[in-house]
Amino acid sequence: MKARVHVTLKHGVLDPQGKAIAGALASLGFGGVEDVRQGKYLELELAETDAAKAQAAVKAMCEKLLANTVIENYSIELV
Amino acid sequence: MKARVHVTLKHGVLDPQGKAIAGALASLGFGGVEDVRQGKYLELELAETDAAKAQAAVKAMCEKLLANTVIENYSIELV
Repeated sequence: MKARVHVTLKHGVLDPQGKAIAGALASLGFGGVEDVRQGKYLELELAETDAAKAQAAVKAMCEKLLANTVIENYSIELV
Repeated sequence: MKARVHVTLKHGVLDPQGKAIAGALASLGFGGVEDVRQGKYLELELAETDAAKAQAAVKAMCEKLLANTVIENYSIELV
């Protein structure tokens, strides 16, 4: 079973990396980019075949390691 | 208009960051994680309202800046 995890900065948390990308796009001539936010995307290959157990396991992984829940949100999608 | 861009390493390209995460998960006691691949996730806020033009613009941004197309794939989703 595969899990896709998105880790994004919470609303209101400054994103200097995103700002740098927006600046670079502007200097390359791409106008009309109002904002860029960068997050992380993880694909996990799990041995677990039960969807509920996999969801619970990945949630625990996010809470403990993959996301800093003080400043980041995460979302889990099983495929 | 908002664009969501996923940038992932091509199949066969080594992903040391993913391997490090897999190792860290294992050492935290999360068994059954067979593989982890880390990618980037970008949210772009665009002034453009025409979907076709926005798609073309984001594709050009990916080719020029956001993705290294030698080793990375990208996918674009407009919302």
